[in-house]
Amino acid sequence: MAIVGYCILDYDGKSVELTHSGSIRTEKGQREAARLLEIFNDITFIVEKYQPDVCAIEKLFFVHNQTTVMPVAHARGVILTVLEQHGIPIYEYTPMEVKKVLTGYGRADKKEVEQMVKLSLNCDKLPKLDDTIDSIAIAISYTRSPDALAGMK
Amino acid sequence: MAIVGYCILDYDGKSVELTHSGSIRTEKGQREAARLLEIFNDITFIVEKYQPDVCAIEKLFFVHNQTTVMPVAHARGVILTVLEQHGIPIYEYTPMEVKKVLTGYGRADKKEVEQMVKLSLNCDKLPKLDDTIDSIAIAISYTRSPDALAGMK
Repeated sequence: MAIVGYCILDYDGKSVELTHSGSIRTEKGQREAARLLEIFNDITFIVEKYQPDVCAIEKLFFVHNQTTVMPVAHARGVILTVLEQHGIPIYEYTPMEVKKVLTGYGRADKKEVEQMVKLSLNCDKLPKLDDTIDSIAIAISYTRSPDALAGMK
Repeated sequence: MAIVGYCILDYDGKSVELTHSGSIRTEKGQREAARLLEIFNDITFIVEKYQPDVCAIEKLFFVHNQTTVMPVAHARGVILTVLEQHGIPIYEYTPMEVKKVLTGYGRADKKEVEQMVKLSLNCDKLPKLDDTIDSIAIAISYTRSPDALAGMK
């Protein structure tokens, strides 16, 4: 739960543009509830500032390392709550779905996904953090889904 | 995540009294984010109404059935956030710790725990729902911990 990557994408039905991206990093030494409240407050700030029409978020599945899944699920519950508070429709994609949409191949590696994110955004440089890049890939997945087509009507 | 059991206990350093208890039940058919927001709103209402000095909550560990752990962890993250928003200190106990404190035996069965909850509250009748009874057992565990002694000073 140390890092929550996020981004704001503009999508006009044809091309995507990266408006903003970043990450929420909470101190590992802090109490968990304090970290969760920080995430709650930061997501609230971002949502109120950018007022997104929809949100795409990673779908969590069975995880091998169970000690890490709990804090991530805690944070995820908080984020879902903030989105619901603001009436923002939520779309969820597994990492495999994201890879498949971007590269055509569900087991693509990180570099292949990054390459496709660059192509989609028509830019050479990506944010440094993997979590932030992942959030862009997830958002792009939404723009290529039937959900996005329906939302554009 | 269908049911969140809770209770309000009064503890004067000697005896415990059950002020209020209940459960938050969300519809299984609802979207998950809507259920989480309902839990967020209900916990906020309870916390603002009863203004507890501390909160004791079940500590979650490795769970065998992974499909159920995610919604529970989502809800737990939301509850921790509300408590932190209101500056309420949080104490966590595993089911085994609760059993041990109440019955002296970490593998006590449900009936033994219920019997000790009745004795602690000095009453014959308990709430119907297991989740609500569990919440009382967890709250009683706090009153018998060194944390409670420290809090009474």
